[in-house]
Amino acid sequence: MVKDMKKVYITSPIIPPIDKFNLLVKQMFKSKYLTNMGPIHNELEIKLKDLLKAKNFSLFNNGTIALLCALKTFDFPIGSEIITTPWTFAATPHSIMWNGYVPVFCDIEKDTFCIDSSKIERLITEKTRAILGVHVYGLPCNVLKIEEIAKKNNLKVIYDAAHAFTTEINGRGIGSYGDISMFSFHSTKLFHTIEGGGLIYNDDSLVEKIKGLRNFGIFSEEVIDDIGLNGKMNELQAIVGLLNLKLIDEEKGKRKKLKDFYDKSFSNIKNIHIPKIPSNISYSYQYYPIIVEDKFPCSRDEIYDNLKNKNIFARKYFYPMCADYECYKDLPSSRSENLPVANDIKNRILCLPFYGDLDLITADRIIKIINDNRFY
Amino acid sequence: MVKDMKKVYITSPIIPPIDKFNLLVKQMFKSKYLTNMGPIHNELEIKLKDLLKAKNFSLFNNGTIALLCALKTFDFPIGSEIITTPWTFAATPHSIMWNGYVPVFCDIEKDTFCIDSSKIERLITEKTRAILGVHVYGLPCNVLKIEEIAKKNNLKVIYDAAHAFTTEINGRGIGSYGDISMFSFHSTKLFHTIEGGGLIYNDDSLVEKIKGLRNFGIFSEEVIDDIGLNGKMNELQAIVGLLNLKLIDEEKGKRKKLKDFYDKSFSNIKNIHIPKIPSNISYSYQYYPIIVEDKFPCSRDEIYDNLKNKNIFARKYFYPMCADYECYKDLPSSRSENLPVANDIKNRILCLPFYGDLDLITADRIIKIINDNRFY
Repeated sequence: MVKDMKKVYITSPIIPPIDKFNLLVKQMFKSKYLTNMGPIHNELEIKLKDLLKAKNFSLFNNGTIALLCALKTFDFPIGSEIITTPWTFAATPHSIMWNGYVPVFCDIEKDTFCIDSSKIERLITEKTRAILGVHVYGLPCNVLKIEEIAKKNNLKVIYDAAHAFTTEINGRGIGSYGDISMFSFHSTKLFHTIEGGGLIYNDDSLVEKIKGLRNFGIFSEEVIDDIGLNGKMNELQAIVGLLNLKLIDEEKGKRKKLKDFYDKSFSNIKNIHIPKIPSNISYSYQYYPIIVEDKFPCSRDEIYDNLKNKNIFARKYFYPMCADYECYKDLPSSRSENLPVANDIKNRILCLPFYGDLDLITADRIIKIINDNRFY
Repeated sequence: MVKDMKKVYITSPIIPPIDKFNLLVKQMFKSKYLTNMGPIHNELEIKLKDLLKAKNFSLFNNGTIALLCALKTFDFPIGSEIITTPWTFAATPHSIMWNGYVPVFCDIEKDTFCIDSSKIERLITEKTRAILGVHVYGLPCNVLKIEEIAKKNNLKVIYDAAHAFTTEINGRGIGSYGDISMFSFHSTKLFHTIEGGGLIYNDDSLVEKIKGLRNFGIFSEEVIDDIGLNGKMNELQAIVGLLNLKLIDEEKGKRKKLKDFYDKSFSNIKNIHIPKIPSNISYSYQYYPIIVEDKFPCSRDEIYDNLKNKNIFARKYFYPMCADYECYKDLPSSRSENLPVANDIKNRILCLPFYGDLDLITADRIIKIINDNRFY
């Protein structure tokens, strides 16, 4: 069928209004101020700081470079161990490695897919310096328990909040938990600057350090004192960000409708499990993961293939999981007996197409394909 | 004077034609293909490959991230020593450090300001793995001598060619020397993508490795095998690049006229030395450095201040030099007796405003301020 031929992907980016974009670009080209913390960059930085209820916020050119710098901020010794989750995008453990530290994978919670705080303490050694949690799919880690463990063991806490744009816990911005939180503004994210990222942190004394890290350690024209890199977001992307900020309420509204539709549909389908959003959480509407239980007549991979055959591209997110990558599989913490929940989930999870412009007819078609007994 | 109030900076970026830019952006927004090695990225990559006479070329989001990945390509052990120059931008030694290697500073040549190949071999130890030369101001290193030393000692050769866009030696692209060369497309460069960079390399077997490093080590949907990061240039910046490519011949022509004017003017001023461009070199016209000799009645700093007082912002480039940064000054190779030429030049060099739109009246004013005997 022709209708079936239209490709549906897991996400589709919001697009700023072209007229307003052209106008701001014209002004920028006229000013010739194109990058290096220009006026549009600074305006976006302030607006995001306010929106995310952050004490301090620094924009970056992407979330990975932001996380690299977050991990560098405390100058842990080479070889330091960072306790983290295998249930995350590659950027998380890679950022640890680029700093010369070692990721130590901790298992995840069955309900939130976040790092299981009850299993963290057993992994702490004399080399441990930090916990790097991930608020995966925008569901928050157990931030209070992690804070308690960190305090007790003198560890820093860094969060990868790439999925958690505007997630709040009891009205408090998620970035305010821990020492530093990284946000991603990649095109796959609800809010984006095409590529982009940022760091939120409470401690004012880190402002200069983090600004230095993102700009070669340059503190003034004649003072270069730290080993920074180029983490600068340019003005062109900042324009995209400024304009996209105005679209996110509408986008979230549309995604909420879509989530409600999916939720209702799956409530009638046995053995497909949908994660619950706790009632005290303001949700980021970043992904729509489903868990395919054993008793469901199809496997996750079969569902994925059935959808793909109809030009619908769901995502086995995360498959492979980080602990199974060639570069991490030989770490002691990657052993499957250490990660029973993650190893179970990795064969069950599927993220469905989820974005504001996905119409309910297509969403219904996705449900029907998943639930179509011709396939099993 | 009002005329004196207009600020003149060391450089001013070329700006793509707004109508063509808007048109390409409109198409891109319609396609919703915004990043992740999209069609415009790929077109720019091919065009740059051809222009720079490269065997292989990979675009990056900036030159620093490109250099980080270049240095990671060969997976040298942590603690490896990389022989490099102190006469470069911070990104060069910082990229070594971010890889867990150690920069070993070698002195520079008086005439080219590039690493002094005659002083390299004495710095080689059993930990040395590579030479990282910088074609500073677009003047080439002694590439043949460096190749000879590298072969003899089984070292890799990486070049920071950030200043050397379209520099050629006897018609051969400068990126074809050494194992990998990094180019920068930052707004301060003759050709730019606002922020951007790229790597040129001859060895086809590095293609997959380098592509992996710039994209999280992702080789396919289900294979993530290497510790990469996010080095992706997005489509919006690639559009700027595509359009700017058409402007560089004109820009170089204008800069050549300006250089000729400066050269002729300084030929009448004693004790200001202008570096000679070797006759077999196709020059990049990136910077216009002058050397203030002892016998000149003003010091470099006085000239800088005199210009600044007239709203003309020259640049003490490089001051401080890398070996003097707080983070490098205690390295054994940073001792001033190891770097006599660099330590001499650092107090004498000044890069003058140099860009196509700088009119000759302003250039003449700059010359007159430098040569004005009221100031001494």
